[in-house]
Parts: sequence; structure tokens; C-alpha cells
Amino acid sequence: MKITLIGVGLIGGSMALKLKAKGLASYVYGVDQNEAHLTEAQQLGIIDEMASLEYAVAHSDLVILAIPVDASREMLPLILNLVDDTQTVMDAGSTKEGIVDAVKDHPKRDRFVAFHPMWGTENSGPKSALSESFTGKAAVICDREHSAEDALKTVELVAENLDMHLIYMKAQDHDIHTAYISHISHITSYALANTVLEKEREEDTIFQLASSGFSSTVRLAKSHPEMWVPIFKQNKENVLDVLNEHISQLRKFKSALEKDNDELLEELIRNANKIRGILGEK
Amino acid sequence: MKITLIGVGLIGGSMALKLKAKGLASYVYGVDQNEAHLTEAQQLGIIDEMASLEYAVAHSDLVILAIPVDASREMLPLILNLVDDTQTVMDAGSTKEGIVDAVKDHPKRDRFVAFHPMWGTENSGPKSALSESFTGKAAVICDREHSAEDALKTVELVAENLDMHLIYMKAQDHDIHTAYISHISHITSYALANTVLEKEREEDTIFQLASSGFSSTVRLAKSHPEMWVPIFKQNKENVLDVLNEHISQLRKFKSALEKDNDELLEELIRNANKIRGILGEK
Repeated sequence: MKITLIGVGLIGGSMALKLKAKGLASYVYGVDQNEAHLTEAQQLGIIDEMASLEYAVAHSDLVILAIPVDASREMLPLILNLVDDTQTVMDAGSTKEGIVDAVKDHPKRDRFVAFHPMWGTENSGPKSALSESFTGKAAVICDREHSAEDALKTVELVAENLDMHLIYMKAQDHDIHTAYISHISHITSYALANTVLEKEREEDTIFQLASSGFSSTVRLAKSHPEMWVPIFKQNKENVLDVLNEHISQLRKFKSALEKDNDELLEELIRNANKIRGILGEK
Repeated sequence: MKITLIGVGLIGGSMALKLKAKGLASYVYGVDQNEAHLTEAQQLGIIDEMASLEYAVAHSDLVILAIPVDASREMLPLILNLVDDTQTVMDAGSTKEGIVDAVKDHPKRDRFVAFHPMWGTENSGPKSALSESFTGKAAVICDREHSAEDALKTVELVAENLDMHLIYMKAQDHDIHTAYISHISHITSYALANTVLEKEREEDTIFQLASSGFSSTVRLAKSHPEMWVPIFKQNKENVLDVLNEHISQLRKFKSALEKDNDELLEELIRNANKIRGILGEK
């Protein structure tokens, strides 16, 4: 099938590389505000041709939106205006309520499938794209009942070709779960980086001492605001809810330490250790 | 040289494997409260012989303490009672003020070198030990002026054979820096795990959705309380100081979100992004 890829960065680029490698994508039109990224994407074999939005969509079976969630919400209605009943549009955004809400009354709503591949890194741009990025990971399809049967089948075929396993849920539930499992991790990591940058004035010491533990906890703090500010805003209520709980959990550690309450400290840690079992480890 | 290894787990085991591989350790006596670990360590080639503390120390050139920091602080004076002026004792603990303070008036203080290899994982026990664990990482020697010249040389030789690069600092400074760079990461990670465990009741959903970002931020939350409660206690004041700053950084995110202050949100994230440069990345 022919694909329009809107946003040729880490996520879109990784999807295109894999779908081409699998033979599902026969031709990929690239649409991006960033000209340098388009040129790079073409050199890297992510896209076959740069095109205008209108031209690309008119010649494609599938349109993939892989841009920040605020831009997706703005563009999706415009794209649905351009498609007919044989074409499918999917996104790849980290929040889902905002985007399904933006097209809930659109006459072409059923051509859209709300999709979220549960993978990302702190890096961005076409150069970071890898064809095996999604292999073995989970992908979520939201509110499937609002998509046409054939559009859903197309996106399921995409997920299968990305070697991902599918989970179906309501957009509302998706946003609650991702607040816990993805969005709060980013805030924690940003706040940790800011803590260290605020308190530790000796940058050279950070660099020399930084252990693998520090690096892994602070890894997500390298993620760009262009992507994450819109996510936090679109999932504001859920993120605030989880953030409040997180601050209250940190206060428990503070109180246990201040009061030399070793039993509480140990209990807090033993409880946290349970995450090992939940993540499917021994 | 002959070595007594007190604590045959992740850290001590990794040290012994590497020092044997390099030929620096000709024979390793293992001392551990955990009999199963001693048997495992012998099977894995970490130690050559299980022995009583007194016997092992009497027959060794070097004694390595690789046990939780509270136990190290208790045992170190007893070990120094057993050594003569040709023997060296080193530790591998994550806090340094407590241990140097415990022996500051000991007549054999100069046989001890306070050492901290900046590496660890969330795993423990001899089975987790790897000979290349420390390669390329930093190791800290604290308060070198309180160690005898030959004892210092021995520990420097150990660091060299572990393929680590040495940094020298005061115990007090070490504990301030590690509060920022290592200890707070663990508290953050524990608190994050507890947040998710508290709020996300659908364990299966955590498991299915857990992305690499979540896994890396929460990785340290698998670390055992036996090791970490004593570290937090021994570094209480520094850890509390950093924890307060961390909570205040999280409150900035909360406030920016609550007030829809996009500029502040973006500024907080852009500031956090600076950690990329400090960690020596582009």
C-alpha cells in the first residue's frame, strides 16, 4: 500500500522503515514542516518522495500522523476532509482523549483509527529511527467501535507488520494508564535532572561520578519539550492526579528518614520491590 | 596477592572475578553470613575457599569489605584489630563519612582505604556478579591522607586491575555528591514504583503497557532494602536536603500544569534537557 507519513521523525521514521522492510509499504510520501528532516528521511530511505499534504493524501491508502499531539489534534480534521471511504488515517500519539474528541462529530470519523505504539526514546529526528524499534512491544488501539471495520483491519495489519501485540481500550482509560506508566516517569526524570542541576554545581563531578543508575533514571529527562508539553497538557487531569500521589509517596520517604523510622523505610522499599514481579521478572 | 572477600555478592563477586582474571588475586577466601551464597560463590569461581574471618584475614594481603554499609561500619574496627602493618583493608560502600568516622581513632586506621566503585545494579547475590562490571567506570578513594602510602598503592593497583579510573575526594564531599547522583535516584525510583502500585490497580495493564521509559525509570526500585536502608540512614542529612529540593522541583511542574503555564513547563523541560550535555552527549 501507499502511505503518507506526516512527521518523519523517530516514531514515524521507525514505522516507515519497518513497513517498507516487511513489504507492506510500497511507497511512502513524506510530509513535514522541517525541510532538513525531509531531506534526511529521503536519504535514509524512510520516505520515497517529499510531497504536499494534499498531493500525498490523494495518492495514499493510509495516512500516518506521527507529530506532537497538539499538532495531530489540529491536523486530523483537515486530513479527514481530504479522504474518501477507501482510505485510512491513523495517529501514533501518546494521548488519546484529545484527538478522538477533536473528530468525534466529523462525518469521516470512521476512517480514523486512534493508535499508540508503546515505545519511544529520548532521541528525536529521522536519524534516530530504527526499523526494529517496535518489535515485541505493545500497541494500543482506542475506541475501535468508532472506526470502520476495514480501517481497523488496515491498522491491525500495520501493527502486525510492526511485530507489535495489540491491546484495545477506551481512549479515556488509555490516558489514565499512560499517565501512570509513561507520563509520570518523564516528569520524575525532568525533576530529578533539575534537582541535580540546581544543587550540584560541579558539573564535572556529575559527569565523572554519574553511575549507570543515575543515567537510567535521568535518561527520559533528555526528551524534548516540543513533544512533551502537549502531552502533559492534553492529559493534564490524570497527570496531576498521579503527580500528587508521587509527591505524597516522596513525602513518606522524607518522613521516614526525618523520624529515623527504619521500619517504615524498609516497608516502603519492600513495597516498591513488588514492581519486579509485576514487570514479569523473578 | 591473597584476598579475603567479606560479602560474596554482586559487588564483591564482580571484584573477585575480575582480579582473578587479571592475575592480581592468586587466592580468594570467602567470608559471608549467607552459607548458600558462599557455596554459590565457590561454584562460580568467585572464591577458592570458605573460611572464618580470623583465619582468612590472617592469611591475606588484602581484605575487601563488600557488605551493607551498616555492617561494614561495625566490622571494620574488628578487622583492623586483626591486621598488621603489611596488610591492607578496603571497603566498597556507597557512603563514606560513617565508615571513616567509625575508625578515625583506631590505631590501625592507616591500613584502611575508603573506596567506592561507582557501579551497581538492582540485582544482588553472587549469581549477578560479572567480571567486567566495573570496566570504564569511576572509583572514588576518600581521605587518602589518612591511609598509609603502601595501603593506598595496593588499592590503586586494585582499581587499575578493575579497569576503573580513580577520583580522590573527602568523605564528606563524596557523600554530598552521591546523594545527588545516586541516592536520590533510588528514592525517586522507589516512590515512582509505589505511586504506580498505589494508583494503578490493574497489574496486568502495567505489565502489558510498561514501555522502556517506564522500565528504565523504575529499574532501581528493584534494589533491596538490606543495602539501601543503611545507605539512606548513613547519608540522612544530604539525602534529605536533595529530597526536599526534588519535591520542590516536582511542585514546579505541578504548579505549571495547574496554572496552564506553558512557558514555565517548557522552561522546566528545557532546563532538564541540559543534563544531556553534562552527561557528555551531544
